[in-house]
Amino acid sequence: MRVRKRKGAEEHLANNPYYVILSPEDAKGKWHQVFGNDKPIHIEVGSGKGGFITGMAAQNPDINYIGIDLQISVLSHALDKVLASDLDNVRLLQVDGSSLTNYFADQEIDLLYLNFSDPWPKTKHEKRRLTYKTFLDIYKKILPEHGEIHFKTDNRGLFEYSLASFSQYGMVLQKVWLDLHASDFADNVMTEYEQKFSDKGQVIYRVEARF
Amino acid sequence: MRVRKRKGAEEHLANNPYYVILSPEDAKGKWHQVFGNDKPIHIEVGSGKGGFITGMAAQNPDINYIGIDLQISVLSHALDKVLASDLDNVRLLQVDGSSLTNYFADQEIDLLYLNFSDPWPKTKHEKRRLTYKTFLDIYKKILPEHGEIHFKTDNRGLFEYSLASFSQYGMVLQKVWLDLHASDFADNVMTEYEQKFSDKGQVIYRVEARF
Ligand SMILES: C[S@@+](CC[C@H](N)C(=O)[O-])C[C@H]1O[C@@H](n2cnc3c(N)ncnc32)[C@H](O)[C@@H]1O
Ligand SMILES: C[S@@+](CC[C@H](N)C(=O)[O-])C[C@H]1O[C@@H](n2cnc3c(N)ncnc32)[C@H](O)[C@@H]1O
Repeated sequence: MRVRKRKGAEEHLANNPYYVILSPEDAKGKWHQVFGNDKPIHIEVGSGKGGFITGMAAQNPDINYIGIDLQISVLSHALDKVLASDLDNVRLLQVDGSSLTNYFADQEIDLLYLNFSDPWPKTKHEKRRLTYKTFLDIYKKILPEHGEIHFKTDNRGLFEYSLASFSQYGMVLQKVWLDLHASDFADNVMTEYEQKFSDKGQVIYRVEARF
Repeated sequence: MRVRKRKGAEEHLANNPYYVILSPEDAKGKWHQVFGNDKPIHIEVGSGKGGFITGMAAQNPDINYIGIDLQISVLSHALDKVLASDLDNVRLLQVDGSSLTNYFADQEIDLLYLNFSDPWPKTKHEKRRLTYKTFLDIYKKILPEHGEIHFKTDNRGLFEYSLASFSQYGMVLQKVWLDLHASDFADNVMTEYEQKFSDKGQVIYRVEARF
């Protein structure tokens, strides 16, 4: 995702250490202390501007959410949403999905979301896709036994790839949606990309897969 | 699939015992003798009017094909195509997919096709879907270890269901197509239903799954 650099984004994040965890290595194994409760913790890897994670947090007060993104600019937009919403069950993290085991202990996370991940359509970039097997290795470590990944995207190639990648990794597809918005899926929280692509008439795919 | 009863269909099949195997129990374990060679044997369960099986047989002379359907009327149309095409590597069988182990020995079949299977959309009819687990039990027995099912359909609900059913059975999805006709899949042989539904603008789904 290419986003314009946002002026002052870095300071904005640094000024809100309650929501933006600045030394996440120190939080490893201690996330329940960060949230101050024992509720389950769900993360979104590649959370972008945060519409999903804040929407989910509002909908599910008994779950803690962590939005994770590489990019400072988009995270600062997510922070705006968190600040505006007065939610206590969301935190943000500016780290790379490939290094999650540095910040989360084994089985510390209860559920992992991937939404509209960058498709990296060229075969030579397969390893960058967030559903590539090296990423699955990492997710598997921080999730419980039979932990789940819930993934949605409009990108046909990435979805085709990801179904096969999950399956070949030994994961089980629990349920598949080939047109989420035409289904009876309840309480769907849209992401910014989902809104954009469904406005264009694109079909939205979704899968729940478990290790 | 509802088809008009075809006058004389039964006689038509009975008159062509070279192509329509009339006592398939007797062929169990002896299909290579039926074909008179040791080439691999591929079957289509629910072959309908036979466009796929005859097209595949013409395209792949080194493979033997068996089209299987419950319905006499549609099978008699398939027989017309076989007779018109002068192919020696196709046979037809009027039996139920749920009883294949009566007609095929363990591992006697090399690959199994399902095309545009009846969707049976109501949950109470799940057991009738050709991708329900009791059918997978049967396919597994007659296929080799890691044998494959190649399935295509236009029906979204059936495809969503089948991906999950294969996966939950322990099968691995090798490759998935969410718009077969927009892909670079080579040498696709269309079925009668495929032609009909793609003419209407429906997307065609395909999956290759292995035990
Ligand atoms: C296409 S955007 C989708 C954003 C959001 N999930 C949505 O649906 O609106 C993908 C996001 O993933 C982030 N991203 C890509 N690779 C990442 C990685 N390895 N670790 C963390 N975030 C990543 C990008 O910075 C970008 O914000
Ligand atoms: C919707 S038609 C599709 C025919 C063909 N494959 C095509 O794509 O044009 C489904 C076919 O499956 C056959 N069928 C349904 N259940 C079956 C079963 N249990 N065993 C064998 N054939 C079956 C029906 O008789 C019908 O001809």
